This record gives sequence, structure tokens and C-alpha cells, in this order.
Amino acid sequence: MIGSLYAGHLGRVCEVSVLCRREEHARALNEQGLRVSGRHDFVTELQAAADPTALPEPELAIVATKTTELEQAAARLEGRWPGAALMTVQNGLGAEEAFGARRVISAVTFMSGTRHSDTHVEYILDTDTWLGPYAETPYELVEEVAELIVESGLKARPFRDLRPAQWSKLIFNASVNAVAALTGLPHDPHFVAREKPDDLGHLVYDLVAEGKRVAEAAGVELLEDPWEMNVHATQRGSRHYPSMLEDVEAHRRTEIDHITGALVRQAERFGVPVPLHAAMYRLVRAREASWASD
Amino acid sequence: MIGSLYAGHLGRVCEVSVLCRREEHARALNEQGLRVSGRHDFVTELQAAADPTALPEPELAIVATKTTELEQAAARLEGRWPGAALMTVQNGLGAEEAFGARRVISAVTFMSGTRHSDTHVEYILDTDTWLGPYAETPYELVEEVAELIVESGLKARPFRDLRPAQWSKLIFNASVNAVAALTGLPHDPHFVAREKPDDLGHLVYDLVAEGKRVAEAAGVELLEDPWEMNVHATQRGSRHYPSMLEDVEAHRRTEIDHITGALVRQAERFGVPVPLHAAMYRLVRAREASWASD
Repeated sequence: MIGSLYAGHLGRVCEVSVLCRREEHARALNEQGLRVSGRHDFVTELQAAADPTALPEPELAIVATKTTELEQAAARLEGRWPGAALMTVQNGLGAEEAFGARRVISAVTFMSGTRHSDTHVEYILDTDTWLGPYAETPYELVEEVAELIVESGLKARPFRDLRPAQWSKLIFNASVNAVAALTGLPHDPHFVAREKPDDLGHLVYDLVAEGKRVAEAAGVELLEDPWEMNVHATQRGSRHYPSMLEDVEAHRRTEIDHITGALVRQAERFGVPVPLHAAMYRLVRAREASWASD
Repeated sequence: MIGSLYAGHLGRVCEVSVLCRREEHARALNEQGLRVSGRHDFVTELQAAADPTALPEPELAIVATKTTELEQAAARLEGRWPGAALMTVQNGLGAEEAFGARRVISAVTFMSGTRHSDTHVEYILDTDTWLGPYAETPYELVEEVAELIVESGLKARPFRDLRPAQWSKLIFNASVNAVAALTGLPHDPHFVAREKPDDLGHLVYDLVAEGKRVAEAAGVELLEDPWEMNVHATQRGSRHYPSMLEDVEAHRRTEIDHITGALVRQAERFGVPVPLHAAMYRLVRAREASWASD
């Protein structure tokens, strides 16, 4: 869905090809193009295939799969198009490590949409993509990619060091997504309520506080306060459905290992106790186990 | 369901009358009697009514409603049958306080069953009821009631002080029920697994440990170790469905306020931090809020 938002928009300012998992998805895109609706409304023509050898070598490859499909995506690209830069757009931490010795751009995005069909995506939240250089990647390349994304009609912001942004989003997601997944609540005003002792906002606040202590121990100065991100997001009144809640409702494997799990592992590495995040991690993993017999 | 198990069995050794909420329930019981199946198999004749004035004054009243219906039950009995002793069989703590100046017997039960209809209950887990005197109630009365229950075919054990048993069950329930409600798992071997870092048993163990610290601060020496109760229960292989999980699946209000909520309030009273129980309390309350718009 995020990948379709990039492909649809970028197809208006450069040549885009799409590597699909399914043949019929590629066929439908080649025949009908990709329709974007919602905040924008247009159809982009693009080239698609399920076999990477059928596609031209790109200058930039964008990997925007869920983290649960990251390994599979990395395997398909292994040794292919070595000259292409590669941008990872994932929740959590560490996606870049799957892509070896390429020029890698790290990115996180806050935009959202709904996938209506193989050839139709709705653009809902028109918020930023943040990107920065990974390892030896030159910052100029990051700026160039950010400009291209902005030119295509999406919002983007380049950073010399993405970690302050990446960690802000990590802590935000670890605190909000697991709570949404376990309670069944969309990201709504319950997440900031801190009046009665049993109000949910106390828990979200304490989860954010644990996360900030890990960031501090890791030497990362956060770009935004995840608690403020939480407050602002719920004030938009959009009652956003975190994807982890959608996963739980569809009995799909969630991204918990790459979000809360990643934070818990960082906490352990830096010796910071995170009992609440550990609890959420275990609860969501157990929730996944509850439908293992589906 | 627990009330039906008492009524069905006790009807074989003494006169039993049943105060129902619904007229048709009373009518069905008067016409067909109450069938017990499962571990035992018989039909008991008894007298039922939805209006307490239609029933004879009992020597002993048993209140075995869920805690969510306790206030309503107490209101119906207020000022009625002042000479009757009253036995409360509830999860959590504090049910006795709803019944004013009577001779009150505190009880907790571990038996379970399934309600098949207004006139049919299945007796599944044939485990104990534990009972003890509340306030000035003489212990001899407790012994007498325990003997009667045993004579009727159920298991019972009288205690001079029920608190060690009550608190053992409180900590067990607070640790197991909320986890089951949030994960969707029946009480199965996941609740004792402590090998991988994301295993659920770590959380259950830590919840039990918090509960034990509260009991210690309250000066209660536990009758049984709630962690051992957890281990034994999951070894039975029964995959017992805690009622709080059933409540969540049916989108009914749960007993969280009277179980985890009661423990959290005791913890606060004695100055013991219980961050994990507080988290579970807030999560289950939020889960209830998620279906408020049903």
C-alpha cells in the first residue's frame, strides 16, 4: 500500500517499474495502470513484472514491504542491480542490514492509505516521508531522492542523520501499535486520557517514557517527543487504525518483532529495563499464537 | 452457572429456593426442575421465583453472581431475611461489604461448569469451594455450611481465616484472567513457557510476583503459591477458558474492576508498585471501551 503510493506518484515524474509477487498483479498493472484516489486523483501508467529479469535496471529501488516480508524481498534482490541505490521504508529498526553492500537510504513514512484492489490505492494521510543516508551513502543522493518525491506530489524531508527521526517513530509505534492491537481501539483519545487511575493514557505515557530512556542510553537525541506525536495524532480526530490492529483483526502475523521486539533488544543491549514493552511484546506474540490453529 | 451448581446439588440434601432475575427462568425451573449433567447426572426439584416475597425465608442465602451484578443482587436483598446467613462466592475482594450487618460467610470456588439452558447446567471441574467467616460470623456456622455442601456432592473446605485462600485466588485470577482476555488464549501451556524472551510465562510469572509482594505488605500469608496454581492448572491439559476471556469474546463487561482493580487498589493502599497489573487493568478496560459503540 505504501509502495503503491510511491509508485503511483513517482510515475508522474520519472519512469517507474514495479516488481510484484503475483503474476496477475503485474498483468493488471500493465493493462490498467495504477489508480490513486483520495487526496489526489489520477492514473499512472507503469511497467510491472513478477520476474525481476523482465524489468530494466533502476537507478533507485524502493522496498516498502512490511517487515514481515522483508527477508523475502531481500532474497529476490540479492546480487541484482548492484548499481541501484536502495531505499528501505519500514517500521522498526535494522531493515537496512538486509541489503548488504549497496548505497542504502533509510526512510520512515507517516503517510497512509487503503489498498482497494491490485490497481487502486487511496491516499489518506498526506504526511511526511523522512529519509537519511545509511552507512557510507552520500547525503546528496538523499537530497536528490527527497526532491524527486516532493516533485511527485508527496511530502518528504531529508536528514543528515535519520536516527533521531527513526527512533521517534520507533518509540511512537512501539507504544501505540501494540496497545491498539491488544485493546481493539483505533488510535483515538483513549490513548491520551490520564485522569482516572484505569485510563489508558497512563500506560501509553509510561511506554513512551521507557522508550525515551532507551534512546538516551543509545545516545540518540529524539527529533520529536513520541508523547507529543501521540497527542497530536489523536487530536486530528481521524481515529487512525494502526496497521498492527488491522493485522490482529485479520489474524495476520504482526510487525511486533520488528517494532516492540527491536526496542526491547536495544534496551537489553544498553541495559535499560523496559518491563512494560516486554509485557506488550509477550502479549502480542501470544495473541498471534491464539490463532495459530486457524 | 456457579449458583446453579450449588442449587442443583444442595436440592438433594435440603430445601432450596432460587431467586431469579427473569420470570420465565423461574417458571421453567418450577416446571422442569434443574438438570445437572457432566461429572454428576440428576434432576433436582426446587422452588423458584423472580419476586423474593414469593419465596420462604431461608436459613442460608448464597450469592454467586458475577461481581458485575453484585450491587444489583445486594439491592434486592436489602432489609430482607435479616435472620438468614449469607454466603458470597465471588472473584476478587470485598464482595462481603455489600451485605451490611448480616452473618456473612466468605467463599471462593474453583469449580466450573457450562450453562446449557435455564434448566440445565453441566458440572465440569469438580474442584473445591473454600469458605471462612467474615467479621463476627462464628466459625461453627462455616463448618456446618461446608459439611452441607460436601453432603450434597460438591467439594468444600472450611477455613478459620479465608484471606490466605482468597488472596491466593485473587493473585492467580489477576495474573491469568487478564492475560487470557487480552491474548485470546485459553489457560494453556503458553502461560508457563519461560524459555524464549518473548514467551508469555515470563509475564505471568512477573504478574504473580507483583501480587505476592502486595500480599506480603498486607500481612497475608498465601495458602498456595499462585504460580504453582498456574503450573498445575495448565498441566491438567483442560485448556480452561477463563470467564474473562468468555466475557471479552461476547463483548460483555468483565470482572476486571473486582479482580485486577481490587489488587491494584490494595497495592496502592500498602504502597507497593504494581506496574504490570496496572497495565493489564488499563488494557482490559480499554478493550471494554472498544465495544462500547456496539
